[in-house]
Amino acid sequence: MRPDGRTAQQIRPVTITRNYTRHAEGSVLIEFGDTKVLCNASVEKGVPRFLKGKGQGWVTAEYGMLPRATHTRSGREASRGKQGGRTLEIQRLIGRSLRAAIDLSALGENTITVDCDVIQADGGTRTASITGACVAMVDAINHMRKSGMIKVNPLQTMVAAISVGIYKGEPISDLQYEEDSAADTDMNVVMTDSGKIIEVQGTAEGEPFSIDEMNALVELARHSIRELNDLQKEALN
Amino acid sequence: MRPDGRTAQQIRPVTITRNYTRHAEGSVLIEFGDTKVLCNASVEKGVPRFLKGKGQGWVTAEYGMLPRATHTRSGREASRGKQGGRTLEIQRLIGRSLRAAIDLSALGENTITVDCDVIQADGGTRTASITGACVAMVDAINHMRKSGMIKVNPLQTMVAAISVGIYKGEPISDLQYEEDSAADTDMNVVMTDSGKIIEVQGTAEGEPFSIDEMNALVELARHSIRELNDLQKEALN
Amino acid sequence: MRPDGRTAQQIRPVTITRNYTRHAEGSVLIEFGDTKVLCNASVEKGVPRFLKGKGQGWVTAEYGMLPRATHTRSGREASRGKQGGRTLEIQRLIGRSLRAAIDLSALGENTITVDCDVIQADGGTRTASITGACVAMVDAINHMRKSGMIKVNPLQTMVAAISVGIYKGEPISDLQYEEDSAADTDMNVVMTDSGKIIEVQGTAEGEPFSIDEMNALVELARHSIRELNDLQKEALN
Amino acid sequence: MRPDGRTAQQIRPVTITRNYTRHAEGSVLIEFGDTKVLCNASVEKGVPRFLKGKGQGWVTAEYGMLPRATHTRSGREASRGKQGGRTLEIQRLIGRSLRAAIDLSALGENTITVDCDVIQADGGTRTASITGACVAMVDAINHMRKSGMIKVNPLQTMVAAISVGIYKGEPISDLQYEEDSAADTDMNVVMTDSGKIIEVQGTAEGEPFSIDEMNALVELARHSIRELNDLQKEALN
Amino acid sequence: MRPDGRTAQQIRPVTITRNYTRHAEGSVLIEFGDTKVLCNASVEKGVPRFLKGKGQGWVTAEYGMLPRATHTRSGREASRGKQGGRTLEIQRLIGRSLRAAIDLSALGENTITVDCDVIQADGGTRTASITGACVAMVDAINHMRKSGMIKVNPLQTMVAAISVGIYKGEPISDLQYEEDSAADTDMNVVMTDSGKIIEVQGTAEGEPFSIDEMNALVELARHSIRELNDLQKEALN
Amino acid sequence: MRPDGRTAQQIRPVTITRNYTRHAEGSVLIEFGDTKVLCNASVEKGVPRFLKGKGQGWVTAEYGMLPRATHTRSGREASRGKQGGRTLEIQRLIGRSLRAAIDLSALGENTITVDCDVIQADGGTRTASITGACVAMVDAINHMRKSGMIKVNPLQTMVAAISVGIYKGEPISDLQYEEDSAADTDMNVVMTDSGKIIEVQGTAEGEPFSIDEMNALVELARHSIRELNDLQKEALN
Repeated sequence: MRPDGRTAQQIRPVTITRNYTRHAEGSVLIEFGDTKVLCNASVEKGVPRFLKGKGQGWVTAEYGMLPRATHTRSGREASRGKQGGRTLEIQRLIGRSLRAAIDLSALGENTITVDCDVIQADGGTRTASITGACVAMVDAINHMRKSGMIKVNPLQTMVAAISVGIYKGEPISDLQYEEDSAADTDMNVVMTDSGKIIEVQGTAEGEPFSIDEMNALVELARHSIRELNDLQKEALN
Repeated sequence: MRPDGRTAQQIRPVTITRNYTRHAEGSVLIEFGDTKVLCNASVEKGVPRFLKGKGQGWVTAEYGMLPRATHTRSGREASRGKQGGRTLEIQRLIGRSLRAAIDLSALGENTITVDCDVIQADGGTRTASITGACVAMVDAINHMRKSGMIKVNPLQTMVAAISVGIYKGEPISDLQYEEDSAADTDMNVVMTDSGKIIEVQGTAEGEPFSIDEMNALVELARHSIRELNDLQKEALN
Repeated sequence: MRPDGRTAQQIRPVTITRNYTRHAEGSVLIEFGDTKVLCNASVEKGVPRFLKGKGQGWVTAEYGMLPRATHTRSGREASRGKQGGRTLEIQRLIGRSLRAAIDLSALGENTITVDCDVIQADGGTRTASITGACVAMVDAINHMRKSGMIKVNPLQTMVAAISVGIYKGEPISDLQYEEDSAADTDMNVVMTDSGKIIEVQGTAEGEPFSIDEMNALVELARHSIRELNDLQKEALN
Repeated sequence: MRPDGRTAQQIRPVTITRNYTRHAEGSVLIEFGDTKVLCNASVEKGVPRFLKGKGQGWVTAEYGMLPRATHTRSGREASRGKQGGRTLEIQRLIGRSLRAAIDLSALGENTITVDCDVIQADGGTRTASITGACVAMVDAINHMRKSGMIKVNPLQTMVAAISVGIYKGEPISDLQYEEDSAADTDMNVVMTDSGKIIEVQGTAEGEPFSIDEMNALVELARHSIRELNDLQKEALN
Repeated sequence: MRPDGRTAQQIRPVTITRNYTRHAEGSVLIEFGDTKVLCNASVEKGVPRFLKGKGQGWVTAEYGMLPRATHTRSGREASRGKQGGRTLEIQRLIGRSLRAAIDLSALGENTITVDCDVIQADGGTRTASITGACVAMVDAINHMRKSGMIKVNPLQTMVAAISVGIYKGEPISDLQYEEDSAADTDMNVVMTDSGKIIEVQGTAEGEPFSIDEMNALVELARHSIRELNDLQKEALN
Repeated sequence: MRPDGRTAQQIRPVTITRNYTRHAEGSVLIEFGDTKVLCNASVEKGVPRFLKGKGQGWVTAEYGMLPRATHTRSGREASRGKQGGRTLEIQRLIGRSLRAAIDLSALGENTITVDCDVIQADGGTRTASITGACVAMVDAINHMRKSGMIKVNPLQTMVAAISVGIYKGEPISDLQYEEDSAADTDMNVVMTDSGKIIEVQGTAEGEPFSIDEMNALVELARHSIRELNDLQKEALN
C-alpha cells in the first residue's frame, strides 16, 4: 500500500547519533529513513536584548537546508540574501517546541541555539529536526551542568514530533516525500513525553478534512511520538 | 469572567464593509471588535512564473500591520528592509486558506492578490484577515465575471477563521489582545462553510494541552465560524 | 473646466477625523476628496543617537502607501525589501515640515514619530499627509502635556500644505490624480499659519515655467493653505 | 561679508573640463570652487522595461559621493547595502532636469545614463552635478550623432542649476559648505537657457521665508544661471 | 613538533566517501583529519545569461559553513542577509579551480554547480573543498555521459589543493586550525595532476617571506598534492 | 611586441599626486598609465568592536570602481544593494597589505581607513590601489604625529604591488587591460621595500603554469616593485 511497504502506523527506521561533530556542546545526527538532519546545540552566555536583566535564559533554533538536500537544487538562501517564509516558519516552530520543554528561569542568563541543517530531505524534515534538536539540547544542558554554568536541571519533558496525513483515504504516519506530495491532508504534531500537545498544525492540501479525521490523525501521532520518545531515551543512555 | 463581559462562546461584534476603497476590484473593511483589517483584492492578468502555460490561475495574499496598529509602535517592515517571520507565516496561511476555496483551473491564467493591512490590532488579526479576504475575493470574482474575464464561478466554498484558546482554564472563542496574552493555549482554525477544516494551528503558550482540550476548542471554533459564514453571506447580499 | 467641476481656486472637500485609531497618542484620518491618509503620531522616550545628551527632542515621519491605494496594484515595499526613492523623498519632506512647526528644545529628550499611511490615493497624498500629520502631532503634544512629560507647549505654528499646478494653461489648486497626470507644472507648498513658506517644490513636468507663473502658483497656494489652517483649527476645537 | 570675500551675487570660480576620463561617451569634471564632481555620460542601446516598444529614449542619472569627499568620512553606501534618501532624492532631481532638456522621442530606443560622482564636496554638489551633467550629455549626444545612432539633435535647451539662500539676512548665490550650514533658507533652482524654471526647491532651515524673499532668491538664481550657461557654451566650443 | 605528531611533510588522514547523499549527481564527503566538507555536484540544463548561445557550458561553486562547524558559533549567513567576503572569496576560488580542469566547450549548454558545505572545520576547508569537489564533479560528468547529455569527456585533469605554511620557522603541509592560527605564512596551492599550478595564494600573516621560502612551500605543496591525486583516483576506482 | 611598445620588464609611467583632495588626512591620486585611483586615508578615533580595549589600532581599506571607469558601464554597487565578490576580495587584500606595513600597537586605539576609488580602469587597479594607499597612509600617519595623536612612528616598511603575467609566452610586468584579457597567467605580488613577499596571488587564466614560470614572474615583480618603492619615496620628499 505504502511505497516502501510500511503499514499505516509504521514510522521509518530512526537513527540518533550523538556527538556527530566535535565543537558543538550537543551534536546529533537524526535520520528518519532517508531524511537526515544535523542538530547542533550551542551554549552561549547572555540572552537577547529583550530578556536582559530578567534573570532567565533563552532557547532558540535556526533551520537550513543544504542546496542539494532535495531532488533538484534549490538556491542557497545566503546567496539570495534572505531566508524564505518556509524556513522562518519552521525555525520558529522548532524554537517554540524546545522552549516548551524547558524551565527558562532555571537556565540562568544563558542561551542555547540549536542549528538544524538538513543534509538530505525525504519528507518530515521539521519533525526530525524537533526530535533530534531535543536530544542535542539535553546534551548541551548536561554540558552546562558539568561545567557548573547551571545547578538545577531545567528540562521538564522530552519533546518529539511526527508528521501524519491522509494518503489514499487512510491516515498514515511519518510521510516520506512521495507520500507527502500526494497526501490530501498534512499534519505536524509536537508532543511531550506524557502525550500532551505542544503544537498541532494541520493543512488540507486537497480536500478539507473533518473533525473526526483530525482526531484519528492526532491519535496516530500520539502513538508514533511515544515510539520516538523511547528512541530518544535509548540514545541518551 | 471575560474582560469585556462576553460569554465563553461569544464572538465580538463583527462588521463587514464592502467597497471600502475605490480602486480595488474587491475592498472590504472587516472589524472583529477593535481589530480592523482592510482587505483589498486585486485582479491581474497573468500568473507567477511557476504556473505559466498550465492553464490555471493563482490566488495569493500579503499581510501587513501599520506601525501604530499596536499598543506601542513597531518598526515599519519596509524601512527595516524585510518582512518578519510572523508576517510571512500569516500571509502564507491566508493564501493557502483562500486557495482552498477556489477551483484554480476555473480562474483562467489570472491572479487575485489580496492585501490584508491591519489598521488597528486587538487580537485575531489573522482570522479577521481570512474572513474579510474571502469576501473581498468574492467581489473580485464577481468583477471578473461581469467583465467577461471568466465564464464559470470558481468559488467552491466560503472560508472563515476564528481564534480559540484556553483562558483561565476554560475554552473561549475570538480572543482579544488581553485574553490572547494570558491564554495557555492559542488555536487558529480555518473552515469551509460546511464545517470542514482547511487549517488548524494550535500552540501551547503555557501548559501543553490534551487531545480532549483540542477537541473542545475545535468544536467551539466550528460554532463561531458558522456565525461568521452567516455574516459573510449577509454582507454579500 | 476641471473634471469634477471645481473652480480653479477651489480645494476639494476636506475632512479631518481625530482619534481615528485607538492606540496612537495622536490619530487623524485626513481626506482631501478621494485621497485618504491615516496619520498616527507616536510618542516615545529618547532620541536618535545623533541627538543624545543635547537636551532636545526630535520629530520624524514615515510614509507608506497601501499596495492597492492606487488604480493598479503596486508592489509592497516591505516585500521588495526597500523603500523607493519617492517614498523616502516624501517622508523626509513631511519630517522637515513638522520640525519647522516645533521648538525642539521644548520637547525634552522625546521623539514624536508620525506615520502617514495612504489608504486611498487620488493626488495630493504628500500635502494631505503634512496637513493631517500636524493635527496628529498637536494631539500627541497635548497627550505629553497632560501626562506631564513636558511643561511648555513646543508648538510654534500650525503647518499645512497644498499642491498647485498649471493645468490647461491655468493655475489651479489641489490637483486630483487626473489633473496631476495632465499638468504642465506641479508645485507643492508648505506654509505656516502666518503665510510664510516652509518648503516649496516646483517641477516642470511638461513646459518649463516662468517666474511670474511661479508667483501666481505660490499666491494661489497661500490662499488654499489659509483655508486648510481654518479647517485644522476647527478640527482641534 | 562672505567667508571667502565674494559679493552676494558672485558665484565661485567654475571650471568645466571635458574628456576627463577615457571610456565614457561624455566625461566632464566640473568644479564650483572646492566642489568637484565627475559627470560621466554613458550611451547604451535599449530602454528600461516600462518604455519598451514606445519608440522613445530615456535619460537617467545616478549620484554618489566618495566616502571622504566630506569633512568627516561617511560610510560607503555600497557597503551599507542601500542608497540613502538624500542620494535618491538628488539623483531623481538630476534625471528630471536632464530629461527636461531633451526631446526623448528624437533619441530612439537608447538610454543615456549620467553618473555624477562627487570627488570633493564644499556645498552645491547637486547644482554642480546638473550643470556638469548637461555638458556631458551634450558630448554623449554628439557621439551618438557621429556614430549614426541618431539623425536629429534631441537637445532642446541647456540646463544649469545654482543654489541660493538667505545668509545673515541677505540673499546670496552659490553657497559653499560653511554658508550652507548657517543659512536660514536654502533654495536650489534649475533653469533652461532662456531663464525658464525646470525645478525649484526651497527649504526653510531656520525661519520660514516670505513670498518676497522667495522672489528675490529666484531672481538671483536667474542671474547666476545665465553665467553658468555662458560657461557651458564656452566649454563646448 | 607538530601538535598531532605529524612530520612536516605529512598530510592528515584523508577520506573520500562517494555517493554520500542520494539526490546529487555527484556527492562526496571529504575529510582532511577533523575537517569535513560535503561536496554536492548538481547538473542543470542551461547556462548563465552571459554564456547563452555560445555553445559552451559552465562550472561554478558555492561554499558555506554550518554555523557550528567552528569552535564558537558564527552567525548564519542566510539570516544575516549576505555572504561574507571570505565566503565569496573561497567560492570564487573553487569555481576557478574546477573550470581549469574542464573543457567547457565539451560540456554543452549545461551547468555543473558544486556546493561545498563545511560540516566540521579544523583548518584547510578551502583545500579540502577543491579536492572533494573535483571528485564530485567527475561523478556528475559520468552521470551526464551515461544519460547521454554529453558525448565526449570534458575532463582534462584532476585538480587538488593543499595549504602549506611556515610554522615555528619550518615549512609544513596541511595545517590544522591550531597550526594555521600560529603560522607566519599561509599559502594555498591548487595544482593539476601533472604538477602544474592553477592557483597560488600566499599571505604573510606575521613576517613577510622571501622568494626562497615561497619556493620551498610550493615544492612541499606539489608533494602533498601528488598524494591527494592518488587518493582521488583510488576513490574513483 | 606589447601593444604600447613597452619592453617586457617595463612598467607604465607612474604618477603619484599627494594632497589631491582637501578633507582627507592623506589623499593620493595614483596613475599607472591610464589606470587612475584616488586613495583617501581617513583617521578616526576608536577601533572596531573586536579590538576594543586591546590597546592597539586598526588599518582597513574599502575599494570601489566608478560605474564608468570601465569600457562599458557596470551597475553601481550602492544601487544593486551589495558589493560584489571581486570588490570584497580586493579590499580585503588592500587592508591586509597595509596592515603588514604597520606596527598596530604603536597606532593607539585609532583607525585608519583608506578608500581606494577607481576613477579610470586600464588593468592593475588593485596593485595601483595598494601602491597609492601606502603613500596616503604615510601622510595620515604624519598628520597623526603632528597633531599629537601618536608619539612613535608605526610605519615599518613601505609596501607596493605590481601585476605580472605570461603574455604570448613571455613574462611581462604591469599588464594593461588588453594584455590582462589575453594573458595565460595573471599574478599580483605585494612586497615590502626590502623585497620580501607580503602577498602573492597567481591564477592560471588559460594554461596552468610551472613552478619555474612562477619564479620568473615573482623575480620580475621584485624588480618592478623596487621601482615603485623609489617613486613612492620620491613622492614623499
